[in-house]
Amino acid sequence: MKCTRQLLVLLGTGILFVLPLAAMATEEGTADAAHLDVASTFLWMAVLLIAAKCASLVERAGQPAVLGELVIGVILGNLALLGIGLFEPVKTDIIIRFLSELGVVILLFQIGLESNIRRMFQVGIPALLVAVVGVALPFVLGTYIVGPILLPGLSSNTYLFLGAALTATSVGITARVFQDLGKLQSREAQIVLGAAVIDDVLGLIILAVVSAIAKEGSVDIGGIGLISGKAILFLVGSIAIGQFFAPLLGKSFSKIHAGVGMKFTLAICFGLVLAALAQKIGLAPIVGAFAAGLVLDPVHFRYFKDPKIVRDIREAVQDAPAELQARVSKIIEHHADRHIEEIIEPLGHFLVPIFFVMTGMAVSLETMFDLPVLLVALGITAVAFIGKILAGFAAGRGVNTWLVGWGMVPRGEVGLIFASIGKGLGVISDTVYSVLIIVIIITTLCTPPMLTFLLKRNSKAMG
Amino acid sequence: MKCTRQLLVLLGTGILFVLPLAAMATEEGTADAAHLDVASTFLWMAVLLIAAKCASLVERAGQPAVLGELVIGVILGNLALLGIGLFEPVKTDIIIRFLSELGVVILLFQIGLESNIRRMFQVGIPALLVAVVGVALPFVLGTYIVGPILLPGLSSNTYLFLGAALTATSVGITARVFQDLGKLQSREAQIVLGAAVIDDVLGLIILAVVSAIAKEGSVDIGGIGLISGKAILFLVGSIAIGQFFAPLLGKSFSKIHAGVGMKFTLAICFGLVLAALAQKIGLAPIVGAFAAGLVLDPVHFRYFKDPKIVRDIREAVQDAPAELQARVSKIIEHHADRHIEEIIEPLGHFLVPIFFVMTGMAVSLETMFDLPVLLVALGITAVAFIGKILAGFAAGRGVNTWLVGWGMVPRGEVGLIFASIGKGLGVISDTVYSVLIIVIIITTLCTPPMLTFLLKRNSKAMG
Repeated sequence: MKCTRQLLVLLGTGILFVLPLAAMATEEGTADAAHLDVASTFLWMAVLLIAAKCASLVERAGQPAVLGELVIGVILGNLALLGIGLFEPVKTDIIIRFLSELGVVILLFQIGLESNIRRMFQVGIPALLVAVVGVALPFVLGTYIVGPILLPGLSSNTYLFLGAALTATSVGITARVFQDLGKLQSREAQIVLGAAVIDDVLGLIILAVVSAIAKEGSVDIGGIGLISGKAILFLVGSIAIGQFFAPLLGKSFSKIHAGVGMKFTLAICFGLVLAALAQKIGLAPIVGAFAAGLVLDPVHFRYFKDPKIVRDIREAVQDAPAELQARVSKIIEHHADRHIEEIIEPLGHFLVPIFFVMTGMAVSLETMFDLPVLLVALGITAVAFIGKILAGFAAGRGVNTWLVGWGMVPRGEVGLIFASIGKGLGVISDTVYSVLIIVIIITTLCTPPMLTFLLKRNSKAMG
Repeated sequence: MKCTRQLLVLLGTGILFVLPLAAMATEEGTADAAHLDVASTFLWMAVLLIAAKCASLVERAGQPAVLGELVIGVILGNLALLGIGLFEPVKTDIIIRFLSELGVVILLFQIGLESNIRRMFQVGIPALLVAVVGVALPFVLGTYIVGPILLPGLSSNTYLFLGAALTATSVGITARVFQDLGKLQSREAQIVLGAAVIDDVLGLIILAVVSAIAKEGSVDIGGIGLISGKAILFLVGSIAIGQFFAPLLGKSFSKIHAGVGMKFTLAICFGLVLAALAQKIGLAPIVGAFAAGLVLDPVHFRYFKDPKIVRDIREAVQDAPAELQARVSKIIEHHADRHIEEIIEPLGHFLVPIFFVMTGMAVSLETMFDLPVLLVALGITAVAFIGKILAGFAAGRGVNTWLVGWGMVPRGEVGLIFASIGKGLGVISDTVYSVLIIVIIITTLCTPPMLTFLLKRNSKAMG
């Protein structure tokens, strides 16, 4: 019986997986002038989504789904090493890349929605400390100690960039782990989220500075001030102005239409606009999306109609015993409160896995094959771990500092951006680039299982 | 008081509308190498979505929201005539175009989900008759009568293409009108949907034939047979095989994960894959998406977990009086049944308006300014109306034939494809192209108000 079931699973997966691939292989190019070749992109999306969902099997091993998505991405992205080049085109498909960017923006918007701005401010001081230590420590260690020791004879600019790349934190991965395991509301998660946002601002400043040094050999204090000012102004401004305008927007737009469609549109546009503005001033779009989610609150949507099921059930139980009414009320109020998160969720299901599979696909395992490079990379990886884990202790007492520290470890796509810019400036050689890629791979892939382990141990200790 | 409110609405709209536009105007190009310039696309999406939602004000005048989306698109797309070129770049933005294509695919997938395959087959004969008459009549009238009379002295190939372009039906617009007014389940709506799908298959065959004639001066019967065979095989095959495999897929994938995410992924991938396959064989992707939606049924997802609110409420009322339990049960069963449609809905809110605003933007009002062209176009438009409205009578007795006929009228993007291909082949001159554009504009923009009128009169007659 069990065997039949597994056969069914295999067969089902096979069909949904092979069908698009077969179609892909028989590219006929029948797309006419007036139509884009949307077919291939649709197929890629389907393949990435199904692959991501199949990879959620890692949950059976107690691991968060995001690890599975990353790993399946690494596998698909490196099939070329086995001579299977089928997945190579997707890496450069501009539309898939856009959808993946949109995915991480949606994710951070969701995380922001689930976070509470007041709780976030409560962790402001520890988050700031964690961010500062988590940036300073890897930067100093990378630039002045392990860089010159492990990679001797390179220019000081290279060490600067190496150090800078080690300061990055990819909040997406950590946030997903906390989300997958239902711990997003913990104080540790809030500290990591806050620290990661501050980290992004600091990272932006560092990137501007080291880029200026690499390009012109010197730093212009005015320029640094300008960038820092803009970044800080954006964050403080978008939260302050958003707090003020969100209720106004909710009220105004509910007058045009008070249905779910308008509610959804208002929320998503708020996220998109802030993400775009963040990128326009040079910050990562995810910072804007997170700020937007943080600002928005169920209360801003109180002028909109409740979801239909809530209205229906409220009506159905209106003459029920008081105790039952209260019980049902609690459920539907909670549901109505979560409604905005719920209507954003399918967008997350649609786009977020694309981001993580694509992040995995960007990992090139080939770099691992060069033993000297690998050894140097392992040394630098150790520093990358130590810097962030020690930063966790800056979170102070009353929280699990290990959790905070490990939460800051993954470099992910942010580290990749640093490395790419350094390579673009000619400061980072192919070897150093490979080293950084390995650091990014290891920090990114080790964090989910480690965080899972720490979270579970923590719950056990608490319970 | 009323005045203050309206001021608030204006202010709110102003902010959400002007902010992104202002950001757009100060393009700084700070996007670095490793990042796409996602910011501009995000802003465009926000602008299009907010514009679409503001246009839903037409509902106050009893018109369907889709008319507002089309009209606001026409306005934004023709601001260049007033010297405001701000919206020109969005027309050629490849990512926005992709999202818009994805939007109409999602729409037809939703329409398919809301339709029932058995009910669809019940209207099979009338739908086939409506489609055949609705293709033959405009084709013959266009090619042999009004073409030669109103546009004398052109080649017979031009008349052929003119006739072919008049056969198209854009199901998206009609489907949205029926959906907006809650009449998607009516027999008339089902006939129009069925006929539009058949129409698309017939249109594909005609397009292939007239293209072959225009290119080579003759038709290859084998080629026509091949195209027709592929198209029919696809439709029949995808429905038959889908009917067989959908339950299997549902069962298999629920074993990997039985949550909402997997349910959503499975459904959407099914739609994407069939849409892609349809395009691969030369049909419109929407035909595949519609077939996919038609095949999928709540029953295929019975192995997945119910939505949380359903489980919670079921638990809360389990020891309530039987009568109350039954009442609540009915609501939550209905909700659980509609759950798959509900989790696709936000995707619709996100992407469908982009399609309709973009369809509106593709309309170039400039062509309207040439009086002789306009007059010819009006004549041909009359034929375009008459051909489809008469086809409605083929639906037979027991239905409102006017509704069916008018439902087939809009040429929309399908007519645009015919015109573009003809232009690409050099068969259709700029003047004839302009004529066709006007025909498309008028048939597309007149249908929503006319259908609304007919539907309301119909309800009144029924009630």
